Amino acid sequence: MSKTSIGRDTRLCMSLAARPGTFGSRFHNHLYEQLGLDYVYKAFTTRDLAAAVAGIRALDIRGCAVSMPYKERVIPMLDGLEPSAAVIESVNTIVNEDGRLTGYNTDYTAVRTLLEGAGLDRAAPFQLRGSGGMAKAVAAALRDAGFAHGAIVARNEDAGRALAEAYGFGWHATPGDAGDAVLLINATPIGMAGGDADALAFSDAAIDAAAAIFDVVALPAETPLLKAARAAGKVTISGTEVAALQALDQFVLYTGVRPSAGQVEAAAKFARG
Amino acid sequence: MSKTSIGRDTRLCMSLAARPGTFGSRFHNHLYEQLGLDYVYKAFTTRDLAAAVAGIRALDIRGCAVSMPYKERVIPMLDGLEPSAAVIESVNTIVNEDGRLTGYNTDYTAVRTLLEGAGLDRAAPFQLRGSGGMAKAVAAALRDAGFAHGAIVARNEDAGRALAEAYGFGWHATPGDAGDAVLLINATPIGMAGGDADALAFSDAAIDAAAAIFDVVALPAETPLLKAARAAGKVTISGTEVAALQALDQFVLYTGVRPSAGQVEAAAKFARG
Repeated sequence: MSKTSIGRDTRLCMSLAARPGTFGSRFHNHLYEQLGLDYVYKAFTTRDLAAAVAGIRALDIRGCAVSMPYKERVIPMLDGLEPSAAVIESVNTIVNEDGRLTGYNTDYTAVRTLLEGAGLDRAAPFQLRGSGGMAKAVAAALRDAGFAHGAIVARNEDAGRALAEAYGFGWHATPGDAGDAVLLINATPIGMAGGDADALAFSDAAIDAAAAIFDVVALPAETPLLKAARAAGKVTISGTEVAALQALDQFVLYTGVRPSAGQVEAAAKFARG
Repeated sequence: MSKTSIGRDTRLCMSLAARPGTFGSRFHNHLYEQLGLDYVYKAFTTRDLAAAVAGIRALDIRGCAVSMPYKERVIPMLDGLEPSAAVIESVNTIVNEDGRLTGYNTDYTAVRTLLEGAGLDRAAPFQLRGSGGMAKAVAAALRDAGFAHGAIVARNEDAGRALAEAYGFGWHATPGDAGDAVLLINATPIGMAGGDADALAFSDAAIDAAAAIFDVVALPAETPLLKAARAAGKVTISGTEVAALQALDQFVLYTGVRPSAGQVEAAAKFARG
């Protein structure tokens, strides 16, 4: 469908990020075209978050993905929070219903859905590495999915301890000894393209001892940690699965339409490519 | 070009109107596609003009067409006015240069360009019917193009007299007697689809006596007045020419690119279709 199909009734969805990526635009616009929906998606950055949010209301923009560094700062500008955002005090999605803006967190819902669907033993211990925004979403999803026993591993002692205490988990400063962790989760940038790309968030021994490995890094799709996990025959959950599922959750919130699994897969593949 | 080509670097241009039309979206998006420009155009309406303008700044929206009823109210929200807008205190176009918003009026510039290019005798008298925003733009364009002798015809006595006095023209309450007017201009909705569609803004006798007829009504493209004028072999200027030329002036302001005459004609035809 051509850009010339964009008219007065077309609904705009958007994203706000300090450094906008390409995944969201490509994923949503691809599905709008495949499903013949009169929507268009555009990524934005801003120097004035409050005015940008005022613009979402004033221009009746249907929905907005929110990335770093706005996920917490945007909260007081909204009219309400859904439980997914309230539980971690972090908003990655705004839905606009006739000027009423509600905050959601589809990273939390996507992680929770993936954890619940992976067929894991929820009584077995996990180890979660990281203490940032994504680690917070994962910790809350673990707890709410019934994973009660585990530890946060974080170099940042204040953030790590606070996260562990908030969710009733243990805390370690280093991942050196994962103990008897059956589920290992990396919620740090370790393994991410452009950064610490070759490093592993967990030791070979810890990977060997685990049954399942979850890496939130989505770029590259195949991180060194996931490669090692797959080579060792472990259950894996990947950052690309989180990225696609959270984008799908946004898509459903914005349009009310749920695409088929095949359509989602094709859109995610297109968006990564 | 598909909607999926819309990415983080794509510039958004937009319009604000109480009742958005389809011409602008189709005209601009068609030219963006033909010229391979990384822009997209979307029509909006709003209940909060100040917040919408704040959103233009905050989201770095490149340009915005402004329609009724915002053309005067928007002025104090801008950082500056170009002469085209200052001369009639009316803005139909906002250009955003790194957060600095400047108001233009491309209706004025388009009308002036068409008046200057029609090969008319500027010493001969004209009669301009109407006293609204478009009549103001036409009156200023007439004066600035060197048409010094003429009269405003308007049923609204206050508005008509004020307009005539502002530009040094005469004033009549009714168009019954066009005197020796050589150029007749309709700047009222007479002849517009959905309204007074079959009426003529000037008498048959006045049309007969004139050398040139200018109808600002753009819908339908062929108004009863233009039909009568063409049948009588008069020089004509049409509302569709104004609409296309003012949209072209916006396009050049937003993109810095000037399409060929053929490209503009094709885009205008597509936009009307």
